[in-house]
Amino acid sequence: MASQGFWSLGGDNAGANTGNQSPSTPRAWCQAAAQKLSGGIGSKLCALLNVGEGEKPGEPAAKQPPETAAGTCGCNKSCNCTKAPLVFSDLYSTDLLPAMDGDTKTMTFLQEVVDILLAYIVESFDRETKVIDFHYPNELLQMNNWELQDEPATLDDILISCRATLKYAIKTAHPRYFNQLSTGLDMVGLAADWLTSTANTNMFTYEVAPVFVLLEYVTLKKMREIIGWPDGRGDGIFSPGGAISNMYAMLLARFKMFPEVKEKGMSSVPRLVAFTSEHSHFSIKKGAAALGIGTESVICIKADERCTCIENLLKVIQGAWGGSLLMSRRHRWKLDGVERANSVTWNPHKMMSVPLQCSALLVREEGLMQNCNQMHACYLFQQDKHYDLSYDTGDKALQCGRHVDIFKLWLMWRAKGTIGFEAQIDKCLELSEYLYNKIKDREGYEMVFDGKPQHTNVCFWYLPPGIRYMEDKEEKKKHLHKVAPVIKARMMEYGTTMVSYQPQGDKVNFFRMVISNPAATFQDIDFLIEEIERLGQDL
Amino acid sequence: MASQGFWSLGGDNAGANTGNQSPSTPRAWCQAAAQKLSGGIGSKLCALLNVGEGEKPGEPAAKQPPETAAGTCGCNKSCNCTKAPLVFSDLYSTDLLPAMDGDTKTMTFLQEVVDILLAYIVESFDRETKVIDFHYPNELLQMNNWELQDEPATLDDILISCRATLKYAIKTAHPRYFNQLSTGLDMVGLAADWLTSTANTNMFTYEVAPVFVLLEYVTLKKMREIIGWPDGRGDGIFSPGGAISNMYAMLLARFKMFPEVKEKGMSSVPRLVAFTSEHSHFSIKKGAAALGIGTESVICIKADERCTCIENLLKVIQGAWGGSLLMSRRHRWKLDGVERANSVTWNPHKMMSVPLQCSALLVREEGLMQNCNQMHACYLFQQDKHYDLSYDTGDKALQCGRHVDIFKLWLMWRAKGTIGFEAQIDKCLELSEYLYNKIKDREGYEMVFDGKPQHTNVCFWYLPPGIRYMEDKEEKKKHLHKVAPVIKARMMEYGTTMVSYQPQGDKVNFFRMVISNPAATFQDIDFLIEEIERLGQDL
Repeated sequence: MASQGFWSLGGDNAGANTGNQSPSTPRAWCQAAAQKLSGGIGSKLCALLNVGEGEKPGEPAAKQPPETAAGTCGCNKSCNCTKAPLVFSDLYSTDLLPAMDGDTKTMTFLQEVVDILLAYIVESFDRETKVIDFHYPNELLQMNNWELQDEPATLDDILISCRATLKYAIKTAHPRYFNQLSTGLDMVGLAADWLTSTANTNMFTYEVAPVFVLLEYVTLKKMREIIGWPDGRGDGIFSPGGAISNMYAMLLARFKMFPEVKEKGMSSVPRLVAFTSEHSHFSIKKGAAALGIGTESVICIKADERCTCIENLLKVIQGAWGGSLLMSRRHRWKLDGVERANSVTWNPHKMMSVPLQCSALLVREEGLMQNCNQMHACYLFQQDKHYDLSYDTGDKALQCGRHVDIFKLWLMWRAKGTIGFEAQIDKCLELSEYLYNKIKDREGYEMVFDGKPQHTNVCFWYLPPGIRYMEDKEEKKKHLHKVAPVIKARMMEYGTTMVSYQPQGDKVNFFRMVISNPAATFQDIDFLIEEIERLGQDL
Repeated sequence: MASQGFWSLGGDNAGANTGNQSPSTPRAWCQAAAQKLSGGIGSKLCALLNVGEGEKPGEPAAKQPPETAAGTCGCNKSCNCTKAPLVFSDLYSTDLLPAMDGDTKTMTFLQEVVDILLAYIVESFDRETKVIDFHYPNELLQMNNWELQDEPATLDDILISCRATLKYAIKTAHPRYFNQLSTGLDMVGLAADWLTSTANTNMFTYEVAPVFVLLEYVTLKKMREIIGWPDGRGDGIFSPGGAISNMYAMLLARFKMFPEVKEKGMSSVPRLVAFTSEHSHFSIKKGAAALGIGTESVICIKADERCTCIENLLKVIQGAWGGSLLMSRRHRWKLDGVERANSVTWNPHKMMSVPLQCSALLVREEGLMQNCNQMHACYLFQQDKHYDLSYDTGDKALQCGRHVDIFKLWLMWRAKGTIGFEAQIDKCLELSEYLYNKIKDREGYEMVFDGKPQHTNVCFWYLPPGIRYMEDKEEKKKHLHKVAPVIKARMMEYGTTMVSYQPQGDKVNFFRMVISNPAATFQDIDFLIEEIERLGQDL
């Protein structure tokens, strides 16, 4: 489709490296990277020279063990790394802990995985590397043996699978990755997520997650203080994403007005209607469908209309993305009035770049969440435990088990301080303003909405020269609608950058730039514009 | 409360180390562990000698940098590790990537975190170490500075926070941790979770998670084949836990019968009733409350009754835990008929020990999930993309963003093969049978249910000598009700093991042993029984 004729994906060069791309092989990249690094770190990279190699289309993966049997580490001659000599092609997962004498093998295996990850991280931040090594689904299915077998694979196979997976992953940490919220990769957040995985526990009770439950308590209180609720009082929980947080908020609002709905269902209450902004997130409609309100009973209010009665009626649900603006003294006025809301969804995995997932629902009224959702499962929430049961927070949510999402936010907050988050958010808004100022009067660009964006969304059309001067408005619109998808597809083929596009109502496809990537600079914005023009000039 | 009088938590020794506990300080433990290890791995541990130190009650955390400024790595004299000389107490998160020249600092910092994690992992599997270093919530709040500040903390502080967090965490990998499903820590699963965090992306579209979307596709198909649906056809998704999977299944069942409910809500359909087993999970009631069915319309069927009409009526929702039995040729008959279900919730994070969270909902009918939940968000699910849109799976769920839960299951499956999971599951059932055989006729024990358990749940009362021969049945019951909570509290104080308890209906508190920990052995079962008797003999 997209590769036919005029709307091609960049002609003969599609998918090939361009001049400003990375060195042509991973090996070359690693060698270059190792030279850049001082001290012992360089030697870590030397073991990684075959990152992603042996994964060429149609060829079986090369199975050379990263360690040789000769008793050396398999690195180069000058290496002084401390890897123990293990032959992963002779080892299986059953040789690792809890196997007897599995300590050394386990540490060596995990260190090997970490070395792969460290190299990937350093590479991800390098502008000379691709954001994505794109392949169509059917191609990618053929490029590696992804099938699951009855028989076990060796640890060498497992390491090869790790390299292959990263080779074809999107580098979401890349400074030129703008595709969506969330972008960027915070190093302290990542460390925290590794620790969370290692702790491998569940948030339902204090007894299995004492520290994490306390950190959730401390952090939610701080977030409520920032919202402006007196003394940070209220309640809250971290949930698996903003859509679930929003649904939880709707569930609470319904229960607050009609507590009998919990036992007796929707047949016991009057027909309910939900008011929301016409620009609200689609999760409000999903929530209405799930809760039995029905999408037709979601009344969308024009965004620029003022209606105090509706503001009061509605249990105000803030957009999850904007919540982070509360941390910026310069921009927090944009959320004036949020302290009057009964519930706030705030997704630190968006503007604050906390690793996915991290979404908080904050609730003004204490006790409401517990009353709304509790079912008193007697095997979890025993009432005769020896500690303060208010720390068994699991019954406040619909979920039973709940993933630990708090530690990465807490550790990042500690590392940055509130002022660090503020600086990060302010910088994203500066970059958006820079983009807006750069293109608002530039030839070939049109803004989708009037005026300076209030947040880091900048929506615009790029009109290639061949379309720019068309007189037939309908014909022009028809052509323009196809521009963004083709440029986006070419971006992915070249792997140089990624930005999203969408239509909206009667507006044809436009670029929907959104900046949340702390690695991005003014030069990356310049690059984006140059790249759009380079990839779109023939359209 | 629990520490008063007769029902005390072990008298003067409460909280102290017992003879079979770990060396008395983390430093001593580390030294012992380092001696056990060969090769260069020992030197990794030497940097960790102060794991958790400086966290004593009331004292501020010790802030000695793990690296000194002298240009050495801070390890001992014979160390030949490759750590670069960095003074973390002079560094902040802003010195890490994406900072200019942040590569070396980032790798060194992350390596330091990994060293902490590796030491924690090895320690967790050591039976000589405590399962938990328990403190009451108010104590734990005082034991460290957990508060969030405006100002940033140094990277040294961040490392100290990591150590403190792990010091007070539950060692869920410990061979004697039986508190709940999930227990154990799989090393390949952990490696996969670290990689997932590093890739930091979202499952909503193929364009941002190409490999993970394909792996979800491959794995769900394999799971449907195992269920027994023809050619593995059908649909499915990984969701944040079994409770959400169950709610999704109820949502689908409702939509299947009354598709108008999506737009028109519950007022457009007849009053609905949900049938379930009296022993079903409480998430069925939570789902009924959320969906507007109401908990009173959940009809619980006695577990031993047979009623074909209800089996047919009900869109059979299997218990999420049992799903894994399908992988065992020896035990799969216990789920005979599952292939007739329209949806199956299967939680690999339970019996299969995949790190939390990992829950799959599998659905027989293709297209139903999409029709039920899709809202066509135009900024995510553009219809004019250049690849096959069936791989944009995000609109099948209520969630918008969706955490990547697939990679750890896929990589573990690859590492073990289907036969490896089978062996792991069979072993847990063997251990349960061993426990059952050991206590069914043992003096002082009574089984809660008749006959051999079909799964790894073994429910029993322990009657201490002082209660064993009481003649007044009501008095005996009253006393017995208090036994399990006190023994459990003492287990936590001593930190030797953890097992759950609960009452059920008119049955007073009993131990609810559940075995899913691949690290557990017959000797650990013996230890549990000895420990119950040791801690309960004076009651």
